[in-house]
Amino acid sequence: MVAYAGYAEVINAGKSIENEDMAAAKVLTLIQQGYDAEKAVELPESSRRSIQSARERSTSEVRKFTQKEVMKRIKSDEDLLDLNMSSSSDDGSKPKAQAAYFGIFDGHAGSGAAIMSANRLHEYIKNRLNELLETILHLYEQESIRPSSINGELKRGNSKNYDTITADSLIVGALEMAFCEMDEQIAAEKQFVKVFGGCAAIVALFFIGKIFVANAGDCRALLITPNKVQPLSTDFNPANERKRLQYLAYRSHDSISPHFTRLEYNRFLTKRDLNRKILFRDWYMDGWATKTVRESDLKPPLISTRCKKPRLLNTIGVSRGFGDHHLMTADDRIPIKPFLCPFPEVQIFDTKELESLTDQEVLVLASDGLWDVLSNDEVADIVRNSLANTDQEDCARYTLVAQELVVAARGDTLETYKWRLANGGMASQDDISVFVIPLKFAINLPKNEDDDDEELLVC
Amino acid sequence: MVAYAGYAEVINAGKSIENEDMAAAKVLTLIQQGYDAEKAVELPESSRRSIQSARERSTSEVRKFTQKEVMKRIKSDEDLLDLNMSSSSDDGSKPKAQAAYFGIFDGHAGSGAAIMSANRLHEYIKNRLNELLETILHLYEQESIRPSSINGELKRGNSKNYDTITADSLIVGALEMAFCEMDEQIAAEKQFVKVFGGCAAIVALFFIGKIFVANAGDCRALLITPNKVQPLSTDFNPANERKRLQYLAYRSHDSISPHFTRLEYNRFLTKRDLNRKILFRDWYMDGWATKTVRESDLKPPLISTRCKKPRLLNTIGVSRGFGDHHLMTADDRIPIKPFLCPFPEVQIFDTKELESLTDQEVLVLASDGLWDVLSNDEVADIVRNSLANTDQEDCARYTLVAQELVVAARGDTLETYKWRLANGGMASQDDISVFVIPLKFAINLPKNEDDDDEELLVC
Repeated sequence: MVAYAGYAEVINAGKSIENEDMAAAKVLTLIQQGYDAEKAVELPESSRRSIQSARERSTSEVRKFTQKEVMKRIKSDEDLLDLNMSSSSDDGSKPKAQAAYFGIFDGHAGSGAAIMSANRLHEYIKNRLNELLETILHLYEQESIRPSSINGELKRGNSKNYDTITADSLIVGALEMAFCEMDEQIAAEKQFVKVFGGCAAIVALFFIGKIFVANAGDCRALLITPNKVQPLSTDFNPANERKRLQYLAYRSHDSISPHFTRLEYNRFLTKRDLNRKILFRDWYMDGWATKTVRESDLKPPLISTRCKKPRLLNTIGVSRGFGDHHLMTADDRIPIKPFLCPFPEVQIFDTKELESLTDQEVLVLASDGLWDVLSNDEVADIVRNSLANTDQEDCARYTLVAQELVVAARGDTLETYKWRLANGGMASQDDISVFVIPLKFAINLPKNEDDDDEELLVC
Repeated sequence: MVAYAGYAEVINAGKSIENEDMAAAKVLTLIQQGYDAEKAVELPESSRRSIQSARERSTSEVRKFTQKEVMKRIKSDEDLLDLNMSSSSDDGSKPKAQAAYFGIFDGHAGSGAAIMSANRLHEYIKNRLNELLETILHLYEQESIRPSSINGELKRGNSKNYDTITADSLIVGALEMAFCEMDEQIAAEKQFVKVFGGCAAIVALFFIGKIFVANAGDCRALLITPNKVQPLSTDFNPANERKRLQYLAYRSHDSISPHFTRLEYNRFLTKRDLNRKILFRDWYMDGWATKTVRESDLKPPLISTRCKKPRLLNTIGVSRGFGDHHLMTADDRIPIKPFLCPFPEVQIFDTKELESLTDQEVLVLASDGLWDVLSNDEVADIVRNSLANTDQEDCARYTLVAQELVVAARGDTLETYKWRLANGGMASQDDISVFVIPLKFAINLPKNEDDDDEELLVC
């Protein structure tokens, strides 16, 4: 397994006959596009050093560069961003780098889109990164030399405001474009073959000493260290994407309003509420205001919250992901796809922020089957206990941790003859897929992983 | 002036013959709608105490309430949110409260929309608050008694996620609806009278011990205390609303694409760039990716950044506000209004967070004429120095501070015969309007201000 990561999965408790969760783990070998792949060699020593030992290099060490050295290493912005240059490496060698890639694709209404995504998404990411690899590596090196200017500027502002082009902003752009291209491919293939259903997608990319988590759906990435539990993704579902979905319904007023009300109300309405005052909110509101209830307010809501999981148009429990191109509401044949969005939110965590990088820092990447029944803190407790009880030398220890998480969320039937959690709560009824990724190895890949790993996890 | 606030303004250096900035300051006297206004009396003592001394009451004091007292004071959620009850006050008295209101309306292409907004917006806000006053006050009282449940829940999550209905969420909703209604009124009046231009709008409402800043445009609210400088608004302009504007252009593809390109590029393109690779980003991207330059990429950009201030459709420098209903691009007659948005972002600051509330804590509310030439820290320095050099007993001292800010941004012509700042930089060429509002008096209004202040500031 890539970077000694652990993986475990379990199929749902009878909801479907196949596991609709899919997963992929790869080492991506990146080579600047436009160069002859045959001639690709290792990175220049300076670039390799800046990547591999980034987290050990302190600011004071950086300042040891003389002004002359810095000037030599920093190319002008114009040179760096001229994507049409044949090669800007001083010694003419061809840029090459590695990244560890993990993805989980939680399918629904069939596993077709999830399988295709597990098989293909990393190729799109790789192609996009290959186009800009040399620029990314050079910018990264620059930023490592003069962190006060570029990184400082970014940190003061909104973390998503990449008005200055940085290595991070190019990697984020690569992930965004790849997610878009993946969804377009599924649409295209559907013209010729049956691709069933859709899927939520989450990807963790370990590159230039950082973790890039791209999330489109309700899977989740959780960073766990001995003294930190930090989500690296936002769950997207119809409830927390209310404003975006209400806006789309507002723009499609003619097709939606005969069947659904796009407004959210503070309680469920019945005929008895007609002409009474109620609190509501529309797409442009964070707060609540009053309105008088009319017949149109009694239609089913765009986002129903009466069931366990919020549903969009009474049909689907996710609001982002791939596929679902032909999904419609059962009664009124309203197309669902225009409301779904394949674009990810990308969060970045720089491992330099960690005090240490031992065997205890992991990223847990899992489908909602895990998170629906275990809190972040519960997951962290299980991971920490499990790591404390396994042998440091055991290459399979992270698999044991992943298995413990899956077992905890699946519960057991021993005493009650129903699937129950250890605390008596309902166990997960969903497919559960879990990666437990040790940062230490994902950031500094073991030497034997010098080429694309074979696909192991897609059934 | 309301709450001894200071106000100063200056007209631009020759750009127009009239001051297009407008301002308003009011004490809003709020009475629950549906009650006979004649019979309105003071709030029940318990509610008054919870509002007026909110910031003095520590958590430990709150815990002194016995469980029985708490139960008596806390009505069930259903009772509280039944907006159709005739009166839920224990003693049958009618809820009444006061709020201090300040607004700045930075007009462009005429002052019509700005004047109308300065005259009317507070009425919409007042009406919306009056509809829910009793509920707001009861929720506020509840939240003061059991802050750990409701407030704690909100603080852990996204501060804008008002899934639990709170006093704050109802005040935010009132501001959002009022901004919407204001813009609708301007549209309606334009059918009958000439209402010139549009305006950016910012409002600060001091109510239940908190500051609510609603902002739609590029004015700014800055909180300044002896040891803190904290913006309470986000500047909205075409550059930082790029994704929203690009999305609207994408939805209006047919009308926009013949004349403009909605994409952002990393540099200005000319014919020489045809078929070369360039970095770009579209509405769904935070990062950057590559594309090959085509003829369509050489059209003028949706958001031009080559001039000092970014402009939308080569026409307008703001992206939010009121009015502009008939504004079109000069060459192609493309309507601008569908891209503009009257909805505010509302930020909340609870004055309980301050260590002390003396004469030194102020909110500076000003048009971009100030912020374009002075940084937040420069404004804070001027305010602090000025307060240190004025007499605590002088009721007009905050006016002196406002005047100093305006003079600093306007610069002088003494030595250079051009308008220059003290540091030699270019002075503001724009209208400048500045409120300096002492929190102490805005939160606890002086007793003589028991009714709506006369409108003083609209010319």
